[in-house]
Amino acid sequence: MATRANSVAFPTVISVDPFVPADKQKGLHNRWHPDIPAFVTVKPGETFNVECIDWTGAQIGNNDNSDDIKNVDLTKIHNLTGPIAVEGAEPGDCLVVDILDVRPFPQMPWGYTGIFELENGGGLFAREFNSRACKAIWDLKGVYATSRHIPGVRFAGVSHPGLIGTAPSAELLATWNKREGELIAAHANAVPTVAFPPEPRGAYVGQDIPDAVRAKIAREGARTVPGREHGGNCDIKNLSRGSRCYFPVFVKGAKLSVGDLHFSQGDGEMSFCGAIEMAGIITLSTSIIKGGVEKFALKQPIFLPSPVDPMYSSKLVFEGISVDLHGDGKQYNMDASVAYKQAALNAIAYLMKLGYTREQCYLLLSAAPVESHVGAIVDSPNACVTMGLPLGIFEHDILPKEEGLQKKDFGQCAIRSDGVL
Amino acid sequence: MATRANSVAFPTVISVDPFVPADKQKGLHNRWHPDIPAFVTVKPGETFNVECIDWTGAQIGNNDNSDDIKNVDLTKIHNLTGPIAVEGAEPGDCLVVDILDVRPFPQMPWGYTGIFELENGGGLFAREFNSRACKAIWDLKGVYATSRHIPGVRFAGVSHPGLIGTAPSAELLATWNKREGELIAAHANAVPTVAFPPEPRGAYVGQDIPDAVRAKIAREGARTVPGREHGGNCDIKNLSRGSRCYFPVFVKGAKLSVGDLHFSQGDGEMSFCGAIEMAGIITLSTSIIKGGVEKFALKQPIFLPSPVDPMYSSKLVFEGISVDLHGDGKQYNMDASVAYKQAALNAIAYLMKLGYTREQCYLLLSAAPVESHVGAIVDSPNACVTMGLPLGIFEHDILPKEEGLQKKDFGQCAIRSDGVL
Amino acid sequence: MATRANSVAFPTVISVDPFVPADKQKGLHNRWHPDIPAFVTVKPGETFNVECIDWTGAQIGNNDNSDDIKNVDLTKIHNLTGPIAVEGAEPGDCLVVDILDVRPFPQMPWGYTGIFELENGGGLFAREFNSRACKAIWDLKGVYATSRHIPGVRFAGVSHPGLIGTAPSAELLATWNKREGELIAAHANAVPTVAFPPEPRGAYVGQDIPDAVRAKIAREGARTVPGREHGGNCDIKNLSRGSRCYFPVFVKGAKLSVGDLHFSQGDGEMSFCGAIEMAGIITLSTSIIKGGVEKFALKQPIFLPSPVDPMYSSKLVFEGISVDLHGDGKQYNMDASVAYKQAALNAIAYLMKLGYTREQCYLLLSAAPVESHVGAIVDSPNACVTMGLPLGIFEHDILPKEEGLQKKDFGQCAIRSDGVL
Amino acid sequence: MATRANSVAFPTVISVDPFVPADKQKGLHNRWHPDIPAFVTVKPGETFNVECIDWTGAQIGNNDNSDDIKNVDLTKIHNLTGPIAVEGAEPGDCLVVDILDVRPFPQMPWGYTGIFELENGGGLFAREFNSRACKAIWDLKGVYATSRHIPGVRFAGVSHPGLIGTAPSAELLATWNKREGELIAAHANAVPTVAFPPEPRGAYVGQDIPDAVRAKIAREGARTVPGREHGGNCDIKNLSRGSRCYFPVFVKGAKLSVGDLHFSQGDGEMSFCGAIEMAGIITLSTSIIKGGVEKFALKQPIFLPSPVDPMYSSKLVFEGISVDLHGDGKQYNMDASVAYKQAALNAIAYLMKLGYTREQCYLLLSAAPVESHVGAIVDSPNACVTMGLPLGIFEHDILPKEEGLQKKDFGQCAIRSDGVL
Repeated sequence: MATRANSVAFPTVISVDPFVPADKQKGLHNRWHPDIPAFVTVKPGETFNVECIDWTGAQIGNNDNSDDIKNVDLTKIHNLTGPIAVEGAEPGDCLVVDILDVRPFPQMPWGYTGIFELENGGGLFAREFNSRACKAIWDLKGVYATSRHIPGVRFAGVSHPGLIGTAPSAELLATWNKREGELIAAHANAVPTVAFPPEPRGAYVGQDIPDAVRAKIAREGARTVPGREHGGNCDIKNLSRGSRCYFPVFVKGAKLSVGDLHFSQGDGEMSFCGAIEMAGIITLSTSIIKGGVEKFALKQPIFLPSPVDPMYSSKLVFEGISVDLHGDGKQYNMDASVAYKQAALNAIAYLMKLGYTREQCYLLLSAAPVESHVGAIVDSPNACVTMGLPLGIFEHDILPKEEGLQKKDFGQCAIRSDGVL
Repeated sequence: MATRANSVAFPTVISVDPFVPADKQKGLHNRWHPDIPAFVTVKPGETFNVECIDWTGAQIGNNDNSDDIKNVDLTKIHNLTGPIAVEGAEPGDCLVVDILDVRPFPQMPWGYTGIFELENGGGLFAREFNSRACKAIWDLKGVYATSRHIPGVRFAGVSHPGLIGTAPSAELLATWNKREGELIAAHANAVPTVAFPPEPRGAYVGQDIPDAVRAKIAREGARTVPGREHGGNCDIKNLSRGSRCYFPVFVKGAKLSVGDLHFSQGDGEMSFCGAIEMAGIITLSTSIIKGGVEKFALKQPIFLPSPVDPMYSSKLVFEGISVDLHGDGKQYNMDASVAYKQAALNAIAYLMKLGYTREQCYLLLSAAPVESHVGAIVDSPNACVTMGLPLGIFEHDILPKEEGLQKKDFGQCAIRSDGVL
Repeated sequence: MATRANSVAFPTVISVDPFVPADKQKGLHNRWHPDIPAFVTVKPGETFNVECIDWTGAQIGNNDNSDDIKNVDLTKIHNLTGPIAVEGAEPGDCLVVDILDVRPFPQMPWGYTGIFELENGGGLFAREFNSRACKAIWDLKGVYATSRHIPGVRFAGVSHPGLIGTAPSAELLATWNKREGELIAAHANAVPTVAFPPEPRGAYVGQDIPDAVRAKIAREGARTVPGREHGGNCDIKNLSRGSRCYFPVFVKGAKLSVGDLHFSQGDGEMSFCGAIEMAGIITLSTSIIKGGVEKFALKQPIFLPSPVDPMYSSKLVFEGISVDLHGDGKQYNMDASVAYKQAALNAIAYLMKLGYTREQCYLLLSAAPVESHVGAIVDSPNACVTMGLPLGIFEHDILPKEEGLQKKDFGQCAIRSDGVL
Repeated sequence: MATRANSVAFPTVISVDPFVPADKQKGLHNRWHPDIPAFVTVKPGETFNVECIDWTGAQIGNNDNSDDIKNVDLTKIHNLTGPIAVEGAEPGDCLVVDILDVRPFPQMPWGYTGIFELENGGGLFAREFNSRACKAIWDLKGVYATSRHIPGVRFAGVSHPGLIGTAPSAELLATWNKREGELIAAHANAVPTVAFPPEPRGAYVGQDIPDAVRAKIAREGARTVPGREHGGNCDIKNLSRGSRCYFPVFVKGAKLSVGDLHFSQGDGEMSFCGAIEMAGIITLSTSIIKGGVEKFALKQPIFLPSPVDPMYSSKLVFEGISVDLHGDGKQYNMDASVAYKQAALNAIAYLMKLGYTREQCYLLLSAAPVESHVGAIVDSPNACVTMGLPLGIFEHDILPKEEGLQKKDFGQCAIRSDGVL
């Protein structure tokens, strides 16, 4: 018969408490550095759980104003769980990681999507919208998310780790810091900033390590914001539960770290805190392909998406081209980023005809399983990017109609307690 | 019983001969201008066929060298069929177009994909690869394409018009010419050029019109290369047979033109002549939504993709970030175009491990139903773009293996008769 | 350049005229018999077109009453094109057939779905509904079908040959005739009949053959109604354009015949003349696997469905169990046929709440891309079969609503000119 | 910030211990009877968890022989959790149930698939195969299942409750007992039995109820094996996490019960204990549509499948027709059950060519996400049913090849400790 003895749960190799600030917990860190020691070691073939706090480290609450978003301390992000060493991994190998499951903590069945302030975090339209803090809380009910702050939609999540990667070597880290430093230098006074240099303030390694090492990590450690050659914060919605990912290994043991779990995300994650951010549990197993970097010409991770995916096949698709980002009619030169933004603005304009506020649209397009494809990137001077809204996530028919679109009142998302928008 | 009398074929409102140069035929044109008269008028609700020559106007042949690609006259493109006026359409209306079918001519069951010379046409990697003319001929066998120039693959086409749009008003045309002219002025000596100003040489309108009008069109007419607010050369692979597209109307009658039919295309169409270019027949029907531009906030077309699509759900996905485009390690600022190129270069590097030449990879990724998503566009400074290769199009297993990838000899695509690559 | 010389259309190996009665044309036959000579021979690897008349041989017209359905001569069906010999095929081989395309004749862009009279043709609910002749004419507009007789729906077809198979050997034919004869004998007076014995009346072979052979074929030839070990009238909707099918070979040359083209069909094809029946063109290519019957344990055909399929992922699913077929509450013993019928009756009852007549429901569920799965077939005594209606085919929202279903007037399908239903 | 106070887990309204025999636990029952009191009451709109023991009530262990399957006590099945009353539900209403999640207990990440003995449980091929007990244990790793007893496959589960339904009224219960009794009477000595009459032995209600009520329930209560008008053991694999199901209500409070959770199942669940049977947790929410039975013509449940589903689009499909079930060549009369069995036998024969044993094939086709469609059910006398094997679940390429199929050694599943097969 079924017994406790013949039933063995997968081990949880690192545990966290989603209600305790990240910098009070062990097994977390928020910078990339080769000198951060492995917190735990696993064997290839083993299946194990890793618990993750939300990316801000419990700074955001389940409530109805956005003051926590406004005041978020971004020197402390992203809070990652790890590093996890894999026995036998050597530089030049390929670390194969199976993302077997990603789910919220049972005791915390909610997540959030935020719009940051222009001056504290920004986001894709920070300048265009002169962004002020906004928030939507999502209830995570099994496969679905709904929000009291964005009524009228319900969708199945394509849950994934926003951030997963191997540790950089010292050389790779130096490369990152150099190239990003040069970009920052070239855009000295940009608001929001164009990149984030190493920042000792807020740096955290939840392990007992010598002070000198800690200081070195804080001083040199790469910020976690961008994705890079090791993976990192790629925010690829389809790297979801059921995926298999092939990472290049840069240091002995590979030192995998993971965090920033997303219950759902749209392609682009446009508001920056744009996914349904959650704390939760990820189940992984690993294997190693010796010399895989050379075997597969592995400059960055490659992956096999999950066979399990929400099938929202019916979509309303918006086109965007690389012109007129700021209402001045300017022509850009084959710029897919501008084209993406145009497609998003076109989608926002449409959804506002249905009654959603601009802030709700911005949050919804960030968090829902929106698909953005690069249509064409060779028809000079206009890149064309599309944004497809799944029709099945709306409770009402949103299709274009002879009689126009019916405008409803969907209220507003959570805004600042001082009412500033 | 079934009789000829109770069976009425859909009318073909404009016919062409795919074997006769475009500028010898009626009902074709290759510039956008409001003064090009409607060649034919249809009623809303009517189903009709439109025949299209390939985009170059029969310049490319079914043979095994790329000299025709090398010498292509690009002042003569794109050859569009139309304009087709729709009764009752007025500026500010929305023209709904159902793309009911897209198929090659029975007498011409083949298409081509080309890499242009750096100095004559370019393409996404024109400079990086110092491109020389290459070509793949595809046999179009029902739903499938295969190529003697790229063995080992077979895929179902997602057939679509690369180019479809309504005529611009005089004001819109002036806007285009102004903004694109400013871009050209800012990049005076770029090779390839960043945009194409009006060019009287090669301009063609296949109608009997007064010389002064013809000259005006040639002098002012917008080139067909980029997609714009009216649709145009958007090269969106999912605007395929079975789609419904909503166009803004800028002139009385809407004056729809269509051409550049593609049997298949990958997201991005990276080699520029990157789709499987074909001559063929498109079946359309239309309707009008009065005042639709205002009703739907219609700045550019929106569309409903077809329910019919190749289901290549298993993919191998390559990531790209906005760094190091030219091997110099440079960091770009949230540039999705660079990220797309990185993802493509990563995919090419992988496919070359399997034995395909760089030219074959470039052509294949342009023509096959490759999916490119904008992963994240907010993680400063790295945009992340993915490129997914459908596994089902390959005759062999291309997955990463413990033992590495098996390299085969797939020959080479069609190259220049002088052998220069 | 593109020329007529370098562009070669696929050959049409057998041509028919869809407006001429089948028994006035060459290359058609309507019985299975090994002595029907090959009408044409193709080589493995060759791509070729085959033209097919509709299954009744032009008996049904595009009009608004069902008298032709009422009076249809079913001794003359199914009209197949062929046989087509494949060079080198021998008994015991596996004939691989690629179904590359299936489409209506351009000059006949319509098809029909019929309900036969109880006494002439029957159908799944012939007895339950005491069926009288009904008909829906479908307009075939590119990928879509619509019907003036069933308003409010539009769907993409999953076009396929209802009937395709290799010729039986004399031994196999004898087996068929014996086993079916025994069944008929056991149900002597059933209406509709349970099976169809060889029937000289109406038998046809459109070739010049000796009278004795013709008489033998007419006397012994198996009727085309059921699917059998050679394929035949399997009416599998997913054996559609893009599929690859593996047939056992029973006679030298394999002698493939094909017909009964369907623009669309629901799983089960319940009204018998239930698909959208059409005349048209099928494009095929073949290859041979020597000894394939033994290699693959090939008792019946196996196939790889097309990657191209309508993606109607959202469905409303009806359950059926094996009870109460005739309103008498009777329990059947694990009978999936009864369970299918229950699911269908449940779906019909639901659609009638929306305003469709029983006849329209019966026709629609037969012709639309309805999916019927065997849920469970082991939970004694109830088999459970489901029937899923794709929501995307309806112009209106048909989902269950708090306020109930809105009943509309959809008129009626084409009925008998005497008005009898 | 995120706090325990602003994070509320969904309540678990009934808890069970998966390692304790079902008849030692509260809140379980294994018969359908209107007099079983509600164990708990929920409000419409509430989201709640329900814990379920595996269907046998912990009789089967995670080990490597099948003696527990051989000796299983089937008078004690299925162990259901409930009944759960929904406030406000009345007979004639429609109970809408959202199946939000279905997952194994973390402490029990495994499940099993069994073949029962001919004389104790049977299964689809019990007689044909003279079945002896066999078993496969599956490790449930996030979205995937693998088995040491069936190597070479890995698949994503489409997790669902095999059994979920509302309580019957006394009248409905009487109808069931009457009609099933008549069937049993008509097949008095069948092995396996054709149906299961009420059986006091093993009957269980895990509540404190008067002895007389308990005895009545034991005496009259319907067995849980078949699905019926209230839902029940329908074993529909697509009634999975993310589905919405509409049940008819027969008693005050609706009294929903649920159990027999399946991690995965193929269409048909052919070996009877054929799903991956598991203990676990199901998350539900409910609402009520007053008078829904009449509004929707609700004779049995209808449902909306989940948007989340494994996308195994590439399949190898086997056909089956209604002949020759026992090797005697007999022709059956349009019998979809026989056709299903033929398709399954054809699939088994094919898989055996690859090296799997008959027992492994039987288990695999029962448990994996195999799709079985009713192809055609009108082509007298042969019903045609298909069985599609998803190619993506196999680690090796199983497609038909010119050179035949490569036979490997996959060992054997768990068999009886006495070695009898």
